[in-house]
Amino acid sequence: MNTPTTDLYEEHLVLEAEARELLFTGARTANSFSEEPVPDEALRAIWELAKWPPTSANTNPMRVLFLRTEDAQGRLIPHLAEGNRAKSASAPVIAVLAYDTQYSEYVPRLLPYMPEFKDTIEADPVKHQEHARFNSALQAGYFLLSVRAAGLAAGPLGGFDSDGVDKEFFPDGRLKSFLLVNIGKPGDSPWFGRLPRLEYEEVVSHL
Amino acid sequence: MNTPTTDLYEEHLVLEAEARELLFTGARTANSFSEEPVPDEALRAIWELAKWPPTSANTNPMRVLFLRTEDAQGRLIPHLAEGNRAKSASAPVIAVLAYDTQYSEYVPRLLPYMPEFKDTIEADPVKHQEHARFNSALQAGYFLLSVRAAGLAAGPLGGFDSDGVDKEFFPDGRLKSFLLVNIGKPGDSPWFGRLPRLEYEEVVSHL
Repeated sequence: MNTPTTDLYEEHLVLEAEARELLFTGARTANSFSEEPVPDEALRAIWELAKWPPTSANTNPMRVLFLRTEDAQGRLIPHLAEGNRAKSASAPVIAVLAYDTQYSEYVPRLLPYMPEFKDTIEADPVKHQEHARFNSALQAGYFLLSVRAAGLAAGPLGGFDSDGVDKEFFPDGRLKSFLLVNIGKPGDSPWFGRLPRLEYEEVVSHL
Repeated sequence: MNTPTTDLYEEHLVLEAEARELLFTGARTANSFSEEPVPDEALRAIWELAKWPPTSANTNPMRVLFLRTEDAQGRLIPHLAEGNRAKSASAPVIAVLAYDTQYSEYVPRLLPYMPEFKDTIEADPVKHQEHARFNSALQAGYFLLSVRAAGLAAGPLGGFDSDGVDKEFFPDGRLKSFLLVNIGKPGDSPWFGRLPRLEYEEVVSHL
């Protein structure tokens, strides 16, 4: 495994080395999982962290369906790309991340000082759904790091038939799945060598 | 300020209380900033953390432009919604988060075991850009938590004219801005009371 070059400029960070390693620099996307079960309370703990970082207008459009039983996972697996099936089948829990297409229903409660934002955002159906897609993706970032905060490996997976998954698990059409996350303790040979990142100068500029 | 109810089920978390508070439960979106400058090395440190968590096919489509000078920020402010101008003007640094519409150029380097993914994803122009939007939003989540890891307040801001910002800062059309982030130490009365979140049962279900 490549040595993380991640403690660059660490004197400017407040977050301690151990926490950085757990969430950012040492954690990896697992490709196999051990059989150690993940208790429901750990799933709850993950959400109780992931729910706090910000979303635009505090809309919080992401929803989570945790698949824990063999039966439930068996309904999901056929909708995965062939190459993703074995690793998901080995995960004790698979989270289906979805967004609520009718998230704005909650605006009066979640944004009590500006309840009229509900009407504003609903007035433009395209923006209404773009808002859900963007903010649920942002929340997926928080969620993945929260899984790691529970000492578990997260295996995000985009290669699946989301229409098929929605028909199977969200038949009323309100929720739209957008990412799967395998969750568990890493198994044998759980990861490949770390893939490279772009150079700082290729990504970041200053004015 | 509401007491964070965030240490629920904490015995299932490996991340320590101090780090949880810094990144998730105690951190808040700042509405005013102190004049304390943010050194360039802190901006670098933020990126050196934010770059590690995963993106689909390791495409890493997000780009960052840090606006530090009064001149540079002055070019941005007119493109902000009226109500957002004062708080951004008080931030020592404003990050413009954008995605690279031609991110797939880097696939052969970033995904060396599957360089043909470049052609696969480019073959469907709609998916090509959706991939960039989704993964850059995911990276924005990592970025916001990385700003907090540097002990700084992050103020994400979606209320701006992205076409105007792109014309001003990315005139060749390759980068598309999608989020602004005010960065600095919190100023006087930096935040309102914490807004509520949905109940666990409203967001999460299990099978």
